Amino acid sequence: MERHFDEELRELKEKLLQMASLAEESIAKAVKALVERDKKLAQNVIDSDEEINMLEIEIDEICLKLLALRQPIAKDLRLIASALKINSDLERIGDLSVNIAERTLPLLEEPLLKPLIDIPRMAELAQKMVKDSLDAFVNQDAELARSVCRRDDEVDQLNHQIFRELLTYMFQDPKNINRAVGLILIGRHLERIADHATNIGEDVFYMVQGRTIKHHIEEKNAKEKK
Amino acid sequence: MERHFDEELRELKEKLLQMASLAEESIAKAVKALVERDKKLAQNVIDSDEEINMLEIEIDEICLKLLALRQPIAKDLRLIASALKINSDLERIGDLSVNIAERTLPLLEEPLLKPLIDIPRMAELAQKMVKDSLDAFVNQDAELARSVCRRDDEVDQLNHQIFRELLTYMFQDPKNINRAVGLILIGRHLERIADHATNIGEDVFYMVQGRTIKHHIEEKNAKEKK
Repeated sequence: MERHFDEELRELKEKLLQMASLAEESIAKAVKALVERDKKLAQNVIDSDEEINMLEIEIDEICLKLLALRQPIAKDLRLIASALKINSDLERIGDLSVNIAERTLPLLEEPLLKPLIDIPRMAELAQKMVKDSLDAFVNQDAELARSVCRRDDEVDQLNHQIFRELLTYMFQDPKNINRAVGLILIGRHLERIADHATNIGEDVFYMVQGRTIKHHIEEKNAKEKK
Repeated sequence: MERHFDEELRELKEKLLQMASLAEESIAKAVKALVERDKKLAQNVIDSDEEINMLEIEIDEICLKLLALRQPIAKDLRLIASALKINSDLERIGDLSVNIAERTLPLLEEPLLKPLIDIPRMAELAQKMVKDSLDAFVNQDAELARSVCRRDDEVDQLNHQIFRELLTYMFQDPKNINRAVGLILIGRHLERIADHATNIGEDVFYMVQGRTIKHHIEEKNAKEKK
């Protein structure tokens, strides 16, 4: 009757990958709705969040069950504890995509403020970070996890650039303010999605290596050694 | 040599309370720096984040150690799994306070845009939500946890109100735009702090009751029954 523990861990990983691909999809769809001015697609992002929410509950329950019944230690324990955290991050990435879609709907009532180039670029980067952080988790790849964390700066810079540019639109004409603020907030949501991917990367690094790269401790130690 | 499990759990709770009070303090200080135009205090919030970061790592390690060595089941297992999640939420609340302080510094280079009333009110509400969510955790109080989640709407509404009001300032005079956008982003940070407190409330409710109030499942079920 009883299945092997390895098989259960594989199932947990698969569920998390499924959750991640739903989260990635919702980022992509939310930004596509903005770029292609597609109201229906924006609404679809909002409606599909339910599926991610249900999966979060299911994954939490799998983790608790494994902790209780299998009483794992060492590497397996770290894997399941990481899965609990990654699960929360993915659910919030779903929420942030919903926020983007909600912000998009009123923007579609007005003409396009400017051609959107940096926002889709940011979305692509963020999506890839989510994907890679989960691949790093499944394959226990500390290097890939670390590279996800490094990419966070690029997203932050793009967001800063978007912010500065949209401010100039506001200064040019008060009629631009509403739309510019909307786009600034969408930039912020994407930045936070990248932050969650970075958190996942940090958790994976810790899980694999048993030491943290959080809070730039490594760089700090490296600097102190110099 | 070996201490009692109960004592270890008490120590874990105390550490989380300590982390929460640091997080509350940093929210309070960040908004005080904004209201009282105190650059030094804003810088202090940024510098003190290190302490919260170190405590996060320490608490994570305590949780993993307890899971590995004590192999807890049922209620104790749920408590430790919740502690792992709450720990992440508190660390991010610390980060968001730093974001507020970072946003405050440039605002202090310009004259005050408007008397600040709603932002300190939002900060107070958010701070209280953090405090109560942790009290609910320590005292296993599902009702208090649920009340934290309910208060999230109030913060969202305040944030929406702040947003609308600041838009009108931008329309009045382009010279207001920079400062208004800064305050809008501070409002968003406070809203996200309340979201994290709500997440903690949901986790505590689950821990105590063994069922979820996430994603408004309860209300939905109640509606369906009607």
